[in-house]
Amino acid sequence: MLEELKKKVFEANLQLVKYNLVVLTWGNVSAIDRKTGLVVIKPSGVPYDTMKASDMVVVDLNGNKIEGDLNPSSDTPTHLELYRTFEDIGGIVHTHSSWACSWAQAGRDINAYGTTHADFSNGTIPCARALTQDEVEGEYELNTGKVIVEEFARRKIKPDECPAVLVYRHGPFTWGKDPFKAVENALILEEVAKMAHRTEKIASLDENSNIGIEQYLLNKHYERKHGANAYYGQK
Amino acid sequence: MLEELKKKVFEANLQLVKYNLVVLTWGNVSAIDRKTGLVVIKPSGVPYDTMKASDMVVVDLNGNKIEGDLNPSSDTPTHLELYRTFEDIGGIVHTHSSWACSWAQAGRDINAYGTTHADFSNGTIPCARALTQDEVEGEYELNTGKVIVEEFARRKIKPDECPAVLVYRHGPFTWGKDPFKAVENALILEEVAKMAHRTEKIASLDENSNIGIEQYLLNKHYERKHGANAYYGQK
Amino acid sequence: MLEELKKKVFEANLQLVKYNLVVLTWGNVSAIDRKTGLVVIKPSGVPYDTMKASDMVVVDLNGNKIEGDLNPSSDTPTHLELYRTFEDIGGIVHTHSSWACSWAQAGRDINAYGTTHADFSNGTIPCARALTQDEVEGEYELNTGKVIVEEFARRKIKPDECPAVLVYRHGPFTWGKDPFKAVENALILEEVAKMAHRTEKIASLDENSNIGIEQYLLNKHYERKHGANAYYGQK
Amino acid sequence: MLEELKKKVFEANLQLVKYNLVVLTWGNVSAIDRKTGLVVIKPSGVPYDTMKASDMVVVDLNGNKIEGDLNPSSDTPTHLELYRTFEDIGGIVHTHSSWACSWAQAGRDINAYGTTHADFSNGTIPCARALTQDEVEGEYELNTGKVIVEEFARRKIKPDECPAVLVYRHGPFTWGKDPFKAVENALILEEVAKMAHRTEKIASLDENSNIGIEQYLLNKHYERKHGANAYYGQK
Repeated sequence: MLEELKKKVFEANLQLVKYNLVVLTWGNVSAIDRKTGLVVIKPSGVPYDTMKASDMVVVDLNGNKIEGDLNPSSDTPTHLELYRTFEDIGGIVHTHSSWACSWAQAGRDINAYGTTHADFSNGTIPCARALTQDEVEGEYELNTGKVIVEEFARRKIKPDECPAVLVYRHGPFTWGKDPFKAVENALILEEVAKMAHRTEKIASLDENSNIGIEQYLLNKHYERKHGANAYYGQK
Repeated sequence: MLEELKKKVFEANLQLVKYNLVVLTWGNVSAIDRKTGLVVIKPSGVPYDTMKASDMVVVDLNGNKIEGDLNPSSDTPTHLELYRTFEDIGGIVHTHSSWACSWAQAGRDINAYGTTHADFSNGTIPCARALTQDEVEGEYELNTGKVIVEEFARRKIKPDECPAVLVYRHGPFTWGKDPFKAVENALILEEVAKMAHRTEKIASLDENSNIGIEQYLLNKHYERKHGANAYYGQK
Repeated sequence: MLEELKKKVFEANLQLVKYNLVVLTWGNVSAIDRKTGLVVIKPSGVPYDTMKASDMVVVDLNGNKIEGDLNPSSDTPTHLELYRTFEDIGGIVHTHSSWACSWAQAGRDINAYGTTHADFSNGTIPCARALTQDEVEGEYELNTGKVIVEEFARRKIKPDECPAVLVYRHGPFTWGKDPFKAVENALILEEVAKMAHRTEKIASLDENSNIGIEQYLLNKHYERKHGANAYYGQK
Repeated sequence: MLEELKKKVFEANLQLVKYNLVVLTWGNVSAIDRKTGLVVIKPSGVPYDTMKASDMVVVDLNGNKIEGDLNPSSDTPTHLELYRTFEDIGGIVHTHSSWACSWAQAGRDINAYGTTHADFSNGTIPCARALTQDEVEGEYELNTGKVIVEEFARRKIKPDECPAVLVYRHGPFTWGKDPFKAVENALILEEVAKMAHRTEKIASLDENSNIGIEQYLLNKHYERKHGANAYYGQK
């Protein structure tokens, strides 16, 4: 079932390797079929170079395995919570990419320092609050998803205006209308995270330097790409 | 029309990928045919791996589309302003390469710290002033070009003596006699930007270190490569 | 003799190149056949691109060469000491990978800053104490092994709970149940070492940032992958 | 003439590209035939991907062109001064590799921080003094060589005990018994320069950390690889 979607999820997983966002078996991509409410996700701990499209696992939105010989990614409950709440997204990616993880480990939001960021997100990329001990020792992966959702609600960020989050001490999740767009967003997040740190360091070595994109420039770039009157790209 | 030039612009765009100066659809290369005053430029938001030479768009110096099925790069008005003002240049490149963007996001000029820089530019690589809110909310891409031109005029820098600029909070534009030379300059700028930051950091960890190339050494390197009596390379 | 194991050790050595953990002839992988107590190890100073499986050297646990035309790695006595003491390990890797070496040269332990680390090790990755002048001028490579063993004993770290150590001023050794797992651990260590430094730098640029993974989160991640009730991966 | 040596110099130049030590036309390798006193060197400003072995230029030790259609590297007089003075070396490399150049631009020696350095050099890798204005405006490339030689003499460093130097504000020269060994040393220098900076930064973030390899450990590593009783590698 869902053979087309399995193929897409499989190929999107391989893009993580191509874009140097994962090593070994790290990372996972999923996608949802909104008509049936079924989710296709990478199996847990399987190497990318031997993985096949038919290894993809199908689960329903409650986490019941519907098809597949292998265990789904251990992060599956996080994906499902995001699909249940962020109703417009079609694909989700989790990686341990180095720059995004380093910001997550430092527990810091990524502030908008330039137009590369503004082309991607309509403001700060949030680092979600730490999970409590109870949340970690309980349904950890589900609670990870709940904390992401809570963070976006608390800050009043719409998931389509910022397609990425940093999980505290852990790493990034990104999403998009389909699994390929979610991978693209994982790549952009890593570029933005790298540049943000370099910007802070370069500025720190010159006392006359100040950082932080001006709000009107952030608006301009976000709107020309994602707004109602966007004119970036093709129709 | 301009099939030869389209092929060159197409190939120069692919070099951005080869040199790791762009990811996804980022960046763009253009070239001008000075006889007809027509400019060939990459279409907006098209992936490099499916792009064809025939996708290149032809516009005139006023921005009217002369040929092409696709929308030209959204940065086209910036390119055109540079072609109108910097009359000796034949190709222009814009990227979001990480090191050059990080200096731009920090709003800093790149000072000349060594001979790699001096082989490239006859002094500081300027970061242009910030665009005002009016300039951003008006004809943004045109005004970006105007601010670059203004910066070079204000500082009395000749565009052939410094083939690169950093747009504040944004990223680099480079140019050259043709699109390939402009790409080469984008690559050198990235190397120079990377080395400049490393130089500052290495120096910051030793209180006896001082940085900034001596003027006579900068002159020597710039002149041996670009001066009237240049002796670097072949005739 | 041990042709199967030689082939594995040979292939594991080539993975060091593939994973960018070594340049030139640097680094070495070994494996032990616990039934015979014989160890297969890379020859000393041989380039990876001309090396053959039959070049692997067989030594016994006392360091006597049993088979092979070439000299074994000069680090062989370190490997043997680890095999003699850490009785459950089957493969060992030594590299001069840049990030792990830089921590070793700074003489610092790698503290656990996030879940990537917790998936790998049940706490701090130790930098062993410096060898004394006598230890260096005596049986240097053997003493290197002894100091590693001493460090793990002194800190009460079990080698299966932390498959890596930094040798002071030198670089990393990693191990695993077989040579491929030891290489995998060398790769993960390098990722963890890189992220740990980036985390410290990113945190140092924001006075509100604090670092160090919470103990309950470290436990959760270590246990879900390596504990009695581990649920990461496939059966 | 010297067709064998031309082939070697050509191949050694291509290794600079393979090892990511150069971009575009940057860098050059030469070798000397000690019997005839003739030097083979890369032509100036020629791209690596179109260069042929027959493009290599032959000059004598006084800089007279003996064979070749192209101009030799503009750095030729530096190479010749080193061949005239360092009588045991057979190959020389100059690059603008990023880490070594960054130390040179900061005007700093690379202190020995670990065994990777000690395997390479018997102590500090010197950054030579700045050339005076007269030296730069006179026979610049020749004077660059003379300043290197002067620096080694003043510090009493033997060129076979430290096969590398940083030219102030410029970049590295390395050498060896043949052009391939000189390239190998250029690669090792870049690794050592990168690690040295990372070591300083990692140490700077922990007030209890101290750096600088102990003299007895430096001696041990240098001697086990290069000393009279060396036991690293094969006979």
